[in-house]
Amino acid sequence: MIAEMRKGATTAQVNAVVRRAKSLGLSVQLNLGTEKTVVAMLGSDTGKLSADIFAVLPGVESVTRIMKPYKLASREFKAEDSLVSINGIEFGGRRIVVMAGPCAVESEEQLMRAVKAVKDSGASIVRGGVFKPRTSPFSFQGLEKAGLELLALVRQRFSIPVVTEVVDPHDVDEVSKYVDILQVGARNMQNFALLTEIGKSRRPVLLKRGFSCTVAEWLTAADYLLSEGNDQVILCERGIRTFEDSTRFSLDVCSIPVVKKFSHLPIVVDPSHAAGHYSFVPAIAKAAVAAGADGLLIEVHPNPKQALMDGLQSLTPSDFARLMKELRLVAKSVGRYI
Amino acid sequence: MIAEMRKGATTAQVNAVVRRAKSLGLSVQLNLGTEKTVVAMLGSDTGKLSADIFAVLPGVESVTRIMKPYKLASREFKAEDSLVSINGIEFGGRRIVVMAGPCAVESEEQLMRAVKAVKDSGASIVRGGVFKPRTSPFSFQGLEKAGLELLALVRQRFSIPVVTEVVDPHDVDEVSKYVDILQVGARNMQNFALLTEIGKSRRPVLLKRGFSCTVAEWLTAADYLLSEGNDQVILCERGIRTFEDSTRFSLDVCSIPVVKKFSHLPIVVDPSHAAGHYSFVPAIAKAAVAAGADGLLIEVHPNPKQALMDGLQSLTPSDFARLMKELRLVAKSVGRYI
Amino acid sequence: MIAEMRKGATTAQVNAVVRRAKSLGLSVQLNLGTEKTVVAMLGSDTGKLSADIFAVLPGVESVTRIMKPYKLASREFKAEDSLVSINGIEFGGRRIVVMAGPCAVESEEQLMRAVKAVKDSGASIVRGGVFKPRTSPFSFQGLEKAGLELLALVRQRFSIPVVTEVVDPHDVDEVSKYVDILQVGARNMQNFALLTEIGKSRRPVLLKRGFSCTVAEWLTAADYLLSEGNDQVILCERGIRTFEDSTRFSLDVCSIPVVKKFSHLPIVVDPSHAAGHYSFVPAIAKAAVAAGADGLLIEVHPNPKQALMDGLQSLTPSDFARLMKELRLVAKSVGRYI
Amino acid sequence: MIAEMRKGATTAQVNAVVRRAKSLGLSVQLNLGTEKTVVAMLGSDTGKLSADIFAVLPGVESVTRIMKPYKLASREFKAEDSLVSINGIEFGGRRIVVMAGPCAVESEEQLMRAVKAVKDSGASIVRGGVFKPRTSPFSFQGLEKAGLELLALVRQRFSIPVVTEVVDPHDVDEVSKYVDILQVGARNMQNFALLTEIGKSRRPVLLKRGFSCTVAEWLTAADYLLSEGNDQVILCERGIRTFEDSTRFSLDVCSIPVVKKFSHLPIVVDPSHAAGHYSFVPAIAKAAVAAGADGLLIEVHPNPKQALMDGLQSLTPSDFARLMKELRLVAKSVGRYI
Repeated sequence: MIAEMRKGATTAQVNAVVRRAKSLGLSVQLNLGTEKTVVAMLGSDTGKLSADIFAVLPGVESVTRIMKPYKLASREFKAEDSLVSINGIEFGGRRIVVMAGPCAVESEEQLMRAVKAVKDSGASIVRGGVFKPRTSPFSFQGLEKAGLELLALVRQRFSIPVVTEVVDPHDVDEVSKYVDILQVGARNMQNFALLTEIGKSRRPVLLKRGFSCTVAEWLTAADYLLSEGNDQVILCERGIRTFEDSTRFSLDVCSIPVVKKFSHLPIVVDPSHAAGHYSFVPAIAKAAVAAGADGLLIEVHPNPKQALMDGLQSLTPSDFARLMKELRLVAKSVGRYI
Repeated sequence: MIAEMRKGATTAQVNAVVRRAKSLGLSVQLNLGTEKTVVAMLGSDTGKLSADIFAVLPGVESVTRIMKPYKLASREFKAEDSLVSINGIEFGGRRIVVMAGPCAVESEEQLMRAVKAVKDSGASIVRGGVFKPRTSPFSFQGLEKAGLELLALVRQRFSIPVVTEVVDPHDVDEVSKYVDILQVGARNMQNFALLTEIGKSRRPVLLKRGFSCTVAEWLTAADYLLSEGNDQVILCERGIRTFEDSTRFSLDVCSIPVVKKFSHLPIVVDPSHAAGHYSFVPAIAKAAVAAGADGLLIEVHPNPKQALMDGLQSLTPSDFARLMKELRLVAKSVGRYI
Repeated sequence: MIAEMRKGATTAQVNAVVRRAKSLGLSVQLNLGTEKTVVAMLGSDTGKLSADIFAVLPGVESVTRIMKPYKLASREFKAEDSLVSINGIEFGGRRIVVMAGPCAVESEEQLMRAVKAVKDSGASIVRGGVFKPRTSPFSFQGLEKAGLELLALVRQRFSIPVVTEVVDPHDVDEVSKYVDILQVGARNMQNFALLTEIGKSRRPVLLKRGFSCTVAEWLTAADYLLSEGNDQVILCERGIRTFEDSTRFSLDVCSIPVVKKFSHLPIVVDPSHAAGHYSFVPAIAKAAVAAGADGLLIEVHPNPKQALMDGLQSLTPSDFARLMKELRLVAKSVGRYI
Repeated sequence: MIAEMRKGATTAQVNAVVRRAKSLGLSVQLNLGTEKTVVAMLGSDTGKLSADIFAVLPGVESVTRIMKPYKLASREFKAEDSLVSINGIEFGGRRIVVMAGPCAVESEEQLMRAVKAVKDSGASIVRGGVFKPRTSPFSFQGLEKAGLELLALVRQRFSIPVVTEVVDPHDVDEVSKYVDILQVGARNMQNFALLTEIGKSRRPVLLKRGFSCTVAEWLTAADYLLSEGNDQVILCERGIRTFEDSTRFSLDVCSIPVVKKFSHLPIVVDPSHAAGHYSFVPAIAKAAVAAGADGLLIEVHPNPKQALMDGLQSLTPSDFARLMKELRLVAKSVGRYI
């Protein structure tokens, strides 16, 4: 951290900053500039300290944090890419992993038709929600336990891994029995009670970015999982909230190279929730692959017109089949495969 | 809901929309315009339906929802102001209720000094966090159980109600034993598992606005509490995330008259978290009162320089005493009192 | 500026940064930390330098600018408040200056009725647009020259100063003949050709904040005016663009104390454009005064239902009269008057 | 437009809305719902009318605009893709047009080295700024006239078209003599005086998206150009302002399919300004091509470390050469070429 003193700050004020820093175990370097004094405070632990500790001291103009707030998710902590492997399907390698399926599990028939379609087209993991965090209490909330059993049936019948969202910290153990990957939804990215439980479970986890959280906050949320010993963390960019209203959210495509530069964790993209409309999904999915994403999470519904929710952003099986063909070409153009 | 058909949509396509609407129990009105046909679908239940159900039908250009997504929190549902009363202190009436205290409970000595100071200056409720949802797992997480016991001691010693945040749905019953008002933090505004538990508890609740949630989403979150039979809901505006970086968040002062117009629930303002710096707190607090807020939530620390967190946004006891004098004048100028 | 070197940066790389800084006339201080070297570069001119000059050098991890980008608008440059006086009406003193009138000048009858009404209620300056920067080329664009002549008539008949927007740098001299204050609209805050011309004219100027510009960018735009020798600059906060959609823009009420802390320039608030709806204007106007604004800019139309534009955000004369009474009480409560 | 009446609105109030609409030449359809009356107003000109005209009438709850605000830029106005051709180089066809060069023209040597490098690697148009709209008046403002002459020299020596920004409406004719494409910068997207002059000039124009403007506002700005008879309009997405701070702006990659769906105009992408850092440019450029962009605008500097501005976001000639090879593969994967 760097504390800049006010013009005219006294020596006593500077000394007070230095003393406070040293009392916290930091090493200190002083810049006695012509106009202002600047105090640099260095140490491996500054990430744990609040900048406010120094900002409130008399004579301090501003405090700038140089260390990033996240540690375990950073490239500085681990230089090589992390690989997360589920039944031999690896996130973070040359393969681009496509996860697909309905937004919500509605019935056995709907789910099985969707799974058959996405598997036939080359998806390697199935997605399907059974606990739905809906904005309104009057909306469909998911099939819950009955849905979990349908997901278990999918694993058995199709020999394909399954990902589903968990919303209550006390459901983690139960849900883990039925599915392969636990998803943390965007609205729960900073639900630290939930993150801690999933961290302890050491199950593979798909951590969606909060729709108004910075990349730094996202990686810091990953630290909650990693600090409990769970290193099977996959990040998922799903669009951020901006002023633009022609799409439901704005996919932050820049976050892909940013995450790749600053973190060792694999990152996938959910074009369906970002777009909010099926007609934009193919363009965004191809952009994500070209930008370096390690996978995709795509909503497919056997009959979007009858979907209980989010039908507008779901692809039909035939749209999905066509998109997979296009994605294989784009993947190849950047040295990867599906 | 209003479905606008595409230019050139066929009669069969229009009829399909009408049939779908009628099958859902809606009454339908048709506009056979010169260029386009518009289908209006009316009924008391359209809020439960997804616009997508119609948007996916062939020939539909767009679907506009006219009903607001929230019901129970709306003025249409309940025209007169709701009053929430805690030990005779009423939110939503002529009195402006000031809640104050430290961001985090750190020790008995720190808490008691803070409580004495804010009570002496006229605060009528004490705030103090014991479960802290911190962005980083390496930050101070709160005193938890020991903190709750200190809060109970405050209630007993000072005969003043206490508000504290609860972060895990399974803690609701336990925390309710120690405090008078349960706070839902901004990061948990859409933690629906938590909202449902607090709704069931029927305890007074302070619902902070998510820092990237619209007023409509906030009122819909209130519906989660209200639909469980808990009508003791107080809203709390605490700043939204924008591009501006001179303050930690941007207080959405417009949300005060917006909430007053569209909802019957009382609304208070937290200037400390919005500003992120003590020097901006007085101006924002006065603005909130002038704009019609029913109360304030202000951070006060006996010694901000030693605070374990958020020291920079805390007022000292003497700053707070001065602010309370100023606030009394502003409250009087808008026909209210503290 | 502070350049932080990468872990493992070589001495040669550090020296290259130092040499570059010295070649630009900066004085340099080195922090040889345990893990990283930090180079502080100080001088009165660092605001003119791009941080990129250093960020591109090998071995540099990041560059942090400590000097603010604005100079002449800063409190560091001028500690005492600036007063801007127009015909004896002073912005920045104890008086709160209310400017009011129609969004657009539509006709002599409409303008004169509006002016009479606002003057009777205590407004001290008249606003009225004649060049309207409309989003669509098919919308009403203003009366232009004929409108200017009507504004001149107002000055003569009512002995009251007038403010109007200018949109083309080549109109500055002409418009200056007819009105007392030149307004720079939000969409032109970074139209540097326009700012330079108005700077040269040395006419009093009302600089609206761009709806997506930070306070720092706003004050830097003021530097364009000030650097041409025009010190008659009044800032105007009018709401920023956010995700919230219940109001047209979100008034950044925090910007009032922020500007007061970091700049010597007076600041007024336009509640009408922020709100976009007349029913929210009174609450926001009172909030602005309580927060320390030096004035208000309010839209009043003799017959909002017939307004050619922005009728929805205009107050009627009787609404305005009532608001002025309320504002006088709020102003008094914070030690000021109207 | 759709006006929804309040619950309990009287017949007289409904009739007043109908009369007002008819007086404006609109045809009207009434929905006499069980709870509410809805008035649909149809006509080819509703885009010119303000929704406020109806929203202010007694008994009206809300007014929803169904027609988009832009006309000439819409697919409804012109169904087939527009092609813009400069010296045989066509925007909007199968070819992806790469424009590259330095952010600012600094000297003959710098410019010629940059042009040679980008032409050798396959760029088909040269970019270079000579009027720079800088945030601070103390920053480098461009070479102006001398820079224009250098650009003319480039056209002559390399037989390659040139694009440069124009910032003052009165410079349009002069600048047109030296360059092939006029650029409207992001900060001037709503400088309607400038748009009108460029519209009249009928010169090819690159219209950058304002960094806080919606796609609808951008296409409406294009209407200013088109309504003056200039149909040589190329749109340029360059990132929007959001809360994310790891990149300078957030590229709105979704805007590419959105523009393709709703407009007939070609769209290119500027990854350099969006990213703000050279290391992110390749990923974003490839994403743009995969998403369907018709071209790219990339900053290349022969020696970024010596650049007078924006050096950090500029590619070196060798980085650019490598990127062009990669882009050719991505272009091919989506059925296009460079």
